[in-house]
Amino acid sequence: MRTRAAVAVAPGKPLEIMEVNLEGPKAGEVLVEIKATGICHTDEFTLSGADPEGLFPAILGHEGAGVVLEVGEGVTTLKPGDHVIPLYTPECRECPSCLSRKTNLCTSIRATQGAGMMPDGTTRFTMLDGTPIHHYMGCSTFANHTVVPEIALAKVRQDAPFDKICYIGCGVTTGVGAVINTAKVEIGATAVVFGLGGIGLNVIQGLKLAGADMIIGVDLNNDKKEWGEKFGMTHFVNPKEIDGDIVPHIVEMTKRGADQIGGADYTFDCTGNTTVMRQALECAHRGWGESIVIGVAAAGAEISTRPFQLVTGRVWKGTAFGGARGRTDVPKIVDWYMDGKIEIDSMITHTLKLEDINKGFDLMHAGESIRSVVLY
Amino acid sequence: MRTRAAVAVAPGKPLEIMEVNLEGPKAGEVLVEIKATGICHTDEFTLSGADPEGLFPAILGHEGAGVVLEVGEGVTTLKPGDHVIPLYTPECRECPSCLSRKTNLCTSIRATQGAGMMPDGTTRFTMLDGTPIHHYMGCSTFANHTVVPEIALAKVRQDAPFDKICYIGCGVTTGVGAVINTAKVEIGATAVVFGLGGIGLNVIQGLKLAGADMIIGVDLNNDKKEWGEKFGMTHFVNPKEIDGDIVPHIVEMTKRGADQIGGADYTFDCTGNTTVMRQALECAHRGWGESIVIGVAAAGAEISTRPFQLVTGRVWKGTAFGGARGRTDVPKIVDWYMDGKIEIDSMITHTLKLEDINKGFDLMHAGESIRSVVLY
Repeated sequence: MRTRAAVAVAPGKPLEIMEVNLEGPKAGEVLVEIKATGICHTDEFTLSGADPEGLFPAILGHEGAGVVLEVGEGVTTLKPGDHVIPLYTPECRECPSCLSRKTNLCTSIRATQGAGMMPDGTTRFTMLDGTPIHHYMGCSTFANHTVVPEIALAKVRQDAPFDKICYIGCGVTTGVGAVINTAKVEIGATAVVFGLGGIGLNVIQGLKLAGADMIIGVDLNNDKKEWGEKFGMTHFVNPKEIDGDIVPHIVEMTKRGADQIGGADYTFDCTGNTTVMRQALECAHRGWGESIVIGVAAAGAEISTRPFQLVTGRVWKGTAFGGARGRTDVPKIVDWYMDGKIEIDSMITHTLKLEDINKGFDLMHAGESIRSVVLY
Repeated sequence: MRTRAAVAVAPGKPLEIMEVNLEGPKAGEVLVEIKATGICHTDEFTLSGADPEGLFPAILGHEGAGVVLEVGEGVTTLKPGDHVIPLYTPECRECPSCLSRKTNLCTSIRATQGAGMMPDGTTRFTMLDGTPIHHYMGCSTFANHTVVPEIALAKVRQDAPFDKICYIGCGVTTGVGAVINTAKVEIGATAVVFGLGGIGLNVIQGLKLAGADMIIGVDLNNDKKEWGEKFGMTHFVNPKEIDGDIVPHIVEMTKRGADQIGGADYTFDCTGNTTVMRQALECAHRGWGESIVIGVAAAGAEISTRPFQLVTGRVWKGTAFGGARGRTDVPKIVDWYMDGKIEIDSMITHTLKLEDINKGFDLMHAGESIRSVVLY
């Protein structure tokens, strides 16, 4: 079949809207009509050429929602008409990682997915001249139709709006999941969130959901104060507006208890900046503070600290897709949204047509959007 | 009273054996006759002058065992004749850290202990000319008699030999505890221990106790192979004798399961070398591998890695005193030793008189001892 897609033809170039060929689903695969897709910083990271593993041409996009049109041989858990969210972190429930009970990082199709291919090592997308087009993160939601492995699709309820739940395909789950699955924040905790963009705001609402007492948001942009407060932030710090370093400032703010030792129980980096990652670790509480790296750093950038920070009880962790097992956890998060436990609508600041997708990247660069969503 | 002590008079100088004055215990304090003390790398670190927080003159030593001679006002949990192990990490059971259920790093007397003082801000030791002598890590076991706060003494069974259980005051508990309390290693785990000295061998026996399947020891000295095997090590690697980097070598050794992803479930740095700390992190398993920093690094040295290592599921932690709550856990470890669950005797390679204590440091420098113990 043919479908319309925004194709990343080369690094650093705008996406090109074009008709492409899409082969039907092979065994274990599913043809999905994408109804809506978010535009995430990770798409931008790859499109810019900064991602050393980026492949071109490719159909980017990994934050979508849609409807199953056709299933390939052997597919048993999905049927045409099912509503689905594609998962860049699949959940096969058979590999050592899925069976470990310790990680969500399913390894079953890792090699081919990383190479921009379906599990059989080929692509379903080609240009009209026959040139193969790479898949992206196993999803390629910047196409109106895409083929996705069955194990990389979460089946969700039919009454949830595509243009909102597409965001659960990445940003919402990453932020909320980092709190719930990775940090396992407990009621009454003190937390700091660095970077109040599309991930940070979701960390904040995850913290609120988890019952944190003090939720400090840190951002260089004062406009984010109102955004943070809307999602449950209790304190805002603009590092440009304080005297001296952010770490002692946060430590001072978080002093509590009989011994007046400051530091947060949990800190989250949502910036991708390795200097901020260090600050996040170092303002975690002595003895038990955990710092979670969420942001994707520039290629080659490294984090550093004195090992004393760890020896005195701080823990440095990271999270991918919020530690969520996609097929198990994503449908629950859709329920939470539908039940009003979490908020999504206001974060989707812009909706665009596929033709205007490059505007979505412009809005991101200008810091004007929290999330732009493309509606097909 | 007067007692005999090995006094660190200045950084980089040998200890000097001398008579010193010792004031009796004040409220909440206990006078202890030290019967035996180990010589640990941390004593050496301070004596050398490398420790930026080192104070002189001081009576070093923090790995002792002895008998209570006299208790100060208000002391209720100890009486003369009790056998005790001094704790450089106290356990007050009242401070926010003790009550957190998350850390062993009791904060109740942290400030004064760090300043080489008893909790009232004064020292009990003075030179015969009246010059105050600093306490060290709240213990000062390089004196035949010492004064220690009640909350920094673990009461242990009377039939345990002082010359062996003194080692539980630091090395044994640090190594075994890092496995049990900090990493919480489970049966069947795969682990790597970097550095097979007095800590590393105890990590190995902790891993054996915890039921680890594969226990890889890494050391530059082939003599350590036999030592490691004695305590439960299953594989030995000398980084000088392999082709290329240690990380891919360990990853290859630890490949297992259907997806053949290598990496250890738990890795431990017992070297204090920040390059090794990085290697230890990076040979932890994707998705769940935890790396525990135990070694004390040189002042100012930093650890680094790419944040991708954390985002893909590795966890970087540290441990102090093996995460053990001294008054609660040390008596149990003494029981384990007496019951034959853990081995200590063979690690104590040298016993010395106080007069010969500097020989103990020489043996450490020469790599000839695992542990030297001074008998009073």
